[in-house]
Amino acid sequence: MSGPRHYCGVVGINAGHNVVADLQKALMIIQHRGQDSAGVSVFDGNVINTVKDAGLVQIALPKERIENIQGQVGIGHVRYATTGGKGAMNAQPMTMTTVFGMIALAHNGDLTNYQKLKTVYMGQGAVFQTDSDTELIINLLSRRMGQDQDPVKAIKAVMSEIDGAYALALMINGRLFGIRDPLGIRPLIIGKLDDGYMICSESSAVYSLGGEIVRDVMPGEVVEITQDSFKSYAPTTRCAYAHCFFEWVYFARPDSIIDGCEVYNVRKNIGRVLAREHPADVDLVMPIPDSGRAHAIGFSIESGIPYEEGFMKNRFADRTFIMPDQATREKAVSNKMIPIKSTVDGKRILIIDDSIVRGTTLKKLVHMLRDAGAKEVHVRVGSPPIIAPCFYGIDMKNREQFIANKHTVDEIREIIGADSLGYISIEGVIEAIGLSGSDLCLACVNAKYPTKIEGEEHRYQTRLTDLK
Amino acid sequence: MSGPRHYCGVVGINAGHNVVADLQKALMIIQHRGQDSAGVSVFDGNVINTVKDAGLVQIALPKERIENIQGQVGIGHVRYATTGGKGAMNAQPMTMTTVFGMIALAHNGDLTNYQKLKTVYMGQGAVFQTDSDTELIINLLSRRMGQDQDPVKAIKAVMSEIDGAYALALMINGRLFGIRDPLGIRPLIIGKLDDGYMICSESSAVYSLGGEIVRDVMPGEVVEITQDSFKSYAPTTRCAYAHCFFEWVYFARPDSIIDGCEVYNVRKNIGRVLAREHPADVDLVMPIPDSGRAHAIGFSIESGIPYEEGFMKNRFADRTFIMPDQATREKAVSNKMIPIKSTVDGKRILIIDDSIVRGTTLKKLVHMLRDAGAKEVHVRVGSPPIIAPCFYGIDMKNREQFIANKHTVDEIREIIGADSLGYISIEGVIEAIGLSGSDLCLACVNAKYPTKIEGEEHRYQTRLTDLK
Amino acid sequence: MSGPRHYCGVVGINAGHNVVADLQKALMIIQHRGQDSAGVSVFDGNVINTVKDAGLVQIALPKERIENIQGQVGIGHVRYATTGGKGAMNAQPMTMTTVFGMIALAHNGDLTNYQKLKTVYMGQGAVFQTDSDTELIINLLSRRMGQDQDPVKAIKAVMSEIDGAYALALMINGRLFGIRDPLGIRPLIIGKLDDGYMICSESSAVYSLGGEIVRDVMPGEVVEITQDSFKSYAPTTRCAYAHCFFEWVYFARPDSIIDGCEVYNVRKNIGRVLAREHPADVDLVMPIPDSGRAHAIGFSIESGIPYEEGFMKNRFADRTFIMPDQATREKAVSNKMIPIKSTVDGKRILIIDDSIVRGTTLKKLVHMLRDAGAKEVHVRVGSPPIIAPCFYGIDMKNREQFIANKHTVDEIREIIGADSLGYISIEGVIEAIGLSGSDLCLACVNAKYPTKIEGEEHRYQTRLTDLK
Amino acid sequence: MSGPRHYCGVVGINAGHNVVADLQKALMIIQHRGQDSAGVSVFDGNVINTVKDAGLVQIALPKERIENIQGQVGIGHVRYATTGGKGAMNAQPMTMTTVFGMIALAHNGDLTNYQKLKTVYMGQGAVFQTDSDTELIINLLSRRMGQDQDPVKAIKAVMSEIDGAYALALMINGRLFGIRDPLGIRPLIIGKLDDGYMICSESSAVYSLGGEIVRDVMPGEVVEITQDSFKSYAPTTRCAYAHCFFEWVYFARPDSIIDGCEVYNVRKNIGRVLAREHPADVDLVMPIPDSGRAHAIGFSIESGIPYEEGFMKNRFADRTFIMPDQATREKAVSNKMIPIKSTVDGKRILIIDDSIVRGTTLKKLVHMLRDAGAKEVHVRVGSPPIIAPCFYGIDMKNREQFIANKHTVDEIREIIGADSLGYISIEGVIEAIGLSGSDLCLACVNAKYPTKIEGEEHRYQTRLTDLK
Repeated sequence: MSGPRHYCGVVGINAGHNVVADLQKALMIIQHRGQDSAGVSVFDGNVINTVKDAGLVQIALPKERIENIQGQVGIGHVRYATTGGKGAMNAQPMTMTTVFGMIALAHNGDLTNYQKLKTVYMGQGAVFQTDSDTELIINLLSRRMGQDQDPVKAIKAVMSEIDGAYALALMINGRLFGIRDPLGIRPLIIGKLDDGYMICSESSAVYSLGGEIVRDVMPGEVVEITQDSFKSYAPTTRCAYAHCFFEWVYFARPDSIIDGCEVYNVRKNIGRVLAREHPADVDLVMPIPDSGRAHAIGFSIESGIPYEEGFMKNRFADRTFIMPDQATREKAVSNKMIPIKSTVDGKRILIIDDSIVRGTTLKKLVHMLRDAGAKEVHVRVGSPPIIAPCFYGIDMKNREQFIANKHTVDEIREIIGADSLGYISIEGVIEAIGLSGSDLCLACVNAKYPTKIEGEEHRYQTRLTDLK
Repeated sequence: MSGPRHYCGVVGINAGHNVVADLQKALMIIQHRGQDSAGVSVFDGNVINTVKDAGLVQIALPKERIENIQGQVGIGHVRYATTGGKGAMNAQPMTMTTVFGMIALAHNGDLTNYQKLKTVYMGQGAVFQTDSDTELIINLLSRRMGQDQDPVKAIKAVMSEIDGAYALALMINGRLFGIRDPLGIRPLIIGKLDDGYMICSESSAVYSLGGEIVRDVMPGEVVEITQDSFKSYAPTTRCAYAHCFFEWVYFARPDSIIDGCEVYNVRKNIGRVLAREHPADVDLVMPIPDSGRAHAIGFSIESGIPYEEGFMKNRFADRTFIMPDQATREKAVSNKMIPIKSTVDGKRILIIDDSIVRGTTLKKLVHMLRDAGAKEVHVRVGSPPIIAPCFYGIDMKNREQFIANKHTVDEIREIIGADSLGYISIEGVIEAIGLSGSDLCLACVNAKYPTKIEGEEHRYQTRLTDLK
Repeated sequence: MSGPRHYCGVVGINAGHNVVADLQKALMIIQHRGQDSAGVSVFDGNVINTVKDAGLVQIALPKERIENIQGQVGIGHVRYATTGGKGAMNAQPMTMTTVFGMIALAHNGDLTNYQKLKTVYMGQGAVFQTDSDTELIINLLSRRMGQDQDPVKAIKAVMSEIDGAYALALMINGRLFGIRDPLGIRPLIIGKLDDGYMICSESSAVYSLGGEIVRDVMPGEVVEITQDSFKSYAPTTRCAYAHCFFEWVYFARPDSIIDGCEVYNVRKNIGRVLAREHPADVDLVMPIPDSGRAHAIGFSIESGIPYEEGFMKNRFADRTFIMPDQATREKAVSNKMIPIKSTVDGKRILIIDDSIVRGTTLKKLVHMLRDAGAKEVHVRVGSPPIIAPCFYGIDMKNREQFIANKHTVDEIREIIGADSLGYISIEGVIEAIGLSGSDLCLACVNAKYPTKIEGEEHRYQTRLTDLK
Repeated sequence: MSGPRHYCGVVGINAGHNVVADLQKALMIIQHRGQDSAGVSVFDGNVINTVKDAGLVQIALPKERIENIQGQVGIGHVRYATTGGKGAMNAQPMTMTTVFGMIALAHNGDLTNYQKLKTVYMGQGAVFQTDSDTELIINLLSRRMGQDQDPVKAIKAVMSEIDGAYALALMINGRLFGIRDPLGIRPLIIGKLDDGYMICSESSAVYSLGGEIVRDVMPGEVVEITQDSFKSYAPTTRCAYAHCFFEWVYFARPDSIIDGCEVYNVRKNIGRVLAREHPADVDLVMPIPDSGRAHAIGFSIESGIPYEEGFMKNRFADRTFIMPDQATREKAVSNKMIPIKSTVDGKRILIIDDSIVRGTTLKKLVHMLRDAGAKEVHVRVGSPPIIAPCFYGIDMKNREQFIANKHTVDEIREIIGADSLGYISIEGVIEAIGLSGSDLCLACVNAKYPTKIEGEEHRYQTRLTDLK
């Protein structure tokens, strides 16, 4: 609810039929990963054609434009605009014409050495039309392919240059590749369709197309997706995973399975862990719709405290989500969430939110519950205190914005006006996910970055891509 | 979810400040009662000014137009377009200039003798620009006021002419009235604000403006709303209530209290009753989001069967709600609801829907659950089988559309593909609401109409408005 | 150019084919008479269906909406919004349902006793949804038809009640009537098509549909237009014409023939007369595009002074025409008209404008010519000084706006910065038109109104409609 | 009227104030050179900011976006979309970030060796996001600047690589350059403003900003525009001019002065020449509005035959101009032009069109005149028969489309239905312009190309840029 925003989602399909409608459907399924622009690129046997524009999938990819393109291989992208603007100009996939043909790229993530590489490369005569690291990746790729005609070799070479988080759907003419960064920070999964194969940021899109999950793309792996199969070009050695733990806590759809762990289950587990770590003597546990329901069910099951729907969410105010600035978003909260008086009045209530960035939304909700007659309001939070910026594709780059950086838990409790406040521990959230803590990126809650970040403590002193 | 659609919602405010923003906010709260057009009319001390247009409140009442009008007395309306079109032309409030000044009217309901009265009145020279019974009511009112200058007498006289369901917010120049039909079929409630009073279709709008509920407008009552108080012109005698039971089952917001019964509680009770009337040996009970959650929680509490969220709803597909035709709506279901595989797979599942009109949506959902691995799918329905049309303001006028009219419960079960199917009984739903069955309109489930309807069985042989 | 704005244009067609496209085409031809809204109503054999909206014909009547209606009888309307707004709500034709069926009306003109009649009629119980005299006419008509079933008698009765200027296209179910006020102030002409007949404000629309002009509707005449012919219900006596002289000077299209006189010819004659009344020793005569060309050609022919195009008009700035307020319009002039330096530089120039209301635009043009090097700038005006308001359908109701009311010709010359200024005389413009002066309405230039206007001098002391 | 379409227009300003509004105004003045997209780029002292979008200047550069950028140096562009689409993506100026800072480029023309250069350069690793030669020029420029930091040297180096027609407004960070191809095919002029200097495709824009013409940019010249002056980097030697003669005949505004010759005067001269080359015994000479007026005035003066406006042009149908395809445009003609019957009826008429590409529009006009009663219709054409494609920036690349390629003049006369048809001779049009024929590009009428074109006869066997 009050959590951070995400950057992007990608999809790529190679099948025995025109895949445009499938790409569109998949993008609607991962629409939560970006609402500012959407686009698809398909290879028609000759060239790559692209339709992309600002807005939700339904707006950006209207029937009359989508009908004009077709192809059995294609990629798609939904984008959350950070700086720069939401315009059509920044929509992806980005396409380029090279001596080897056309390249289309859809990118989810953030390169940490983007500025450095860009400067170096510009010094060699390269020019850039955008501020997007996607454009840099295509430039690097094109240069590498000039040195070695083999796309896979070129991709590997580019991967040895770039740092950070990236999940890529890449098309070189009619060849489709899925690429995941060496630590697997951003998710990417392989699916099998009736007459083809696909890659996507989230597994739900695979199901929505009637397909089956094959497996996650491995960290550092390049997979070439064909109509009949897929071919893996894995890293020769590996020594580390760093899956973003926030995908499970907040970003991904509940029905997605990421690196083997289903999001809905993880969220229920978080509720269970919270019930053990921060029990409370309350009358009922309430979710903050829609993102907090699984957490609350888990807490209810573990604690035996009844689960109730105590907030009425106004679905017509849901446009809030696409309101650009924080101020507008917060102002919209009071129209969006209304307590159900009879559920709340005279009760001791516990609510669970997925995370706290600034705390402003939560403060409003607590006050609304009190106004509606709640005797006590207890807050539990499904992620540990956020204290450090994310450089891997999440829109929380500014340390100043984190309330947990400036205040103790008790101070935060007082600011938001709760009777008690409990964050899940780092150990707790690791347990809830069920993977090893060393396989997760927890940088935003423990300030230890999995890749080298100038001026920050990082887990690995060498560039990860060197670790072969 | 698969239930019928509603017509309209109304609001009226008289307060010590410019009420335009309050009207707008209240309309956003009752937006679920109509998404096709919205409008507000305010009296500026001299004339009534109106802003209205097609679309959601945010679209129809944009800042730049709303800023141009002001007044301390005003009414508002949201509308669900049935036949005729969604255009700006049909938006309410409807306003007219008469010899007594300006009249503005916002109407929720349906007059059952509209065509008859219109024909009679046209025979006397009246002309009509629309097919709306709202226009007829204003015409009748104007004529009555010509005979007797007193607005209340005129209103009463009109009420003795018209039959059917109506909840009206009426402004005659700067005087504001709330009017409810003699059986109280459609809801209307009085609220007290900091510096004024209001009427509205649903109590949640009162809370959203920081006010307190005073009481429901009584069946057949006219209330004049002033800044300091309200004055009641009650019917001298009364002998019947006929509150639409569907308001609790499906239409109204969970957080609204209608005729003393909170909607959320009624829905939980429905779940409890269903658990007793149609128990099931299943692993978990799942709501159909968003409307079915309270039902499912009630079933879970009564039965002890765990409550789980097993459907993921795509909020970006929520535009479905404003899709005009049935076909488009149904096609959109599969993008909108996706089962969470881990919750569903291998389980015996019970889902609760609020009602079944055609059954097509439910059929899709059952199949989706089976595809996701559900071992058994049991369906419970929060209203008795719908078998008769509604003539009181709900968009289900055609007997042919009701699956329960053509099939037995077991046939319906087979059609939708469920392992078991249980409708709540008429007695059960009466118990869940907590009012006397004779005080409810249950015509759509028992075919006994509270007012005289040509060709239908009706509870009262004389016109109800004669029952003084 | 700097002249007043017009109200409306009407059309009606009865033919052996679906007339929707013809109505649309005719409205495009008379689009200059109103750009704020457009609409068509057609009778499909059963009911009258209407499509109307704000905007130019192309915008208001889009293909997808127009395709949904059809009929062999129909009317259309283009409207210039004065007060009140340009919204879809005020678009015409206006339609009403009465006991006799459906009525649709398209109106060009202004009733001078509108407020009086409205008040009287409201006293009898009538209600009004708009501030439009069109609504009043339909109400009166409906009432009269209640007394006497014959439409023609009812129309005649209404004509005996209303005063002012009106040209009407009226449909009563499938019967089509053309009606012109008793003085013939606004134009209305009958045309013959291949398989039908039509009426229209301007003859050019008849030609554009491949038809032939039959004759003008006579003052006070009602014509019923059928597929095979038309039937005239003429006034039994008549004693006066008062055709608005401004239709020839400015409003109508050059290619239209109004009451026997072709507009283009009249305008050339005006130029000739001006050359005689106000000769000038100049190097060249220049039109102000586009409206002044015929005037300038006439002046050139009569005087022997060369005609040159010295203003370049920016067609992309032509949207000026649909800019609502005077200020915006004036500001736009300098982008819209640019002198051609080579034509103008060092020359003594004479320009002709059709009329002067405020004089602001003309002042700008004179200055622009001087800036471009003109040695002298002489101005001739194609209408006498405008000194009195129009109550017959032209948007110049406020005496204060007329520069000729506050200043002598020489003062005006100084204000606009011209070397000489000559208005055509009243006699001159009468000569140019070629009709008798007593058959023209010259009220705006001689302040003598053809109908009774409270507080104004009028030519006829009794109501004209009484003059039988 | 029936002539070819143009590509683009450019402007660049360096002045002592924020130039955004001036750029916008200048673009509106040259809007006729491209209506599909518009854009401006300004340097704010630090970076270059750009606003550009599809549509007319008024649409593409709305107030709210224009207000957000500012700078004292800037360039602008209007674009006519050929293939590829009209979308925002193809709007100019195009901007790039290089190691030397930001580059913005606005381009009017066509590179004849674009594909060849692009292929070569891609072979060296360059990638291209568009099919636009503008992108190629920036790439070349960036590479050259990497070799030699001096912008002027880099520009000169690029000019030695590229062939064809180009008039460029170029910004490298805050430095502004105007560049014209070595033959001066496309126009570009230098103007002096109150507090700055500018370059523009047409001189009218200079006047519209209150400035004075300084001189045309010379063929092959690079000028750097500063606030106080401009600095010329002329080619060391030159041997040829090849100004596109069509700029005078059809493209440019009448009030523009190109390479010393005013367009309006040239067009009058064309009329005079036609009167001598192809005299006719007719009653009147009529222009085809709006482009043909000057031609007709010239013909009238030379021949003594009266000039009349015989076509009424519907300004509301003027959107035709922005209709994309030929078919739609032709269909729109009949709504757009209507003969004035009284002028035409019974007369022998001569009309002058600027050029004939396909002849379809002209055929319609001739028929319309006959239908309106013209006894004879004679056609004169202001350019010689078009027989060869243009490779220098005009949208007539397909030889098949030219009627004069397939038919003799007499056949064309018969096809269009005229009584006589006369094209101006090549010598005649040269005389009318007043420059030497060897200084003009007449390739589309004599098939002799000024630069080397594969498979075509060309005047110069070596690359022109080698001729130093």
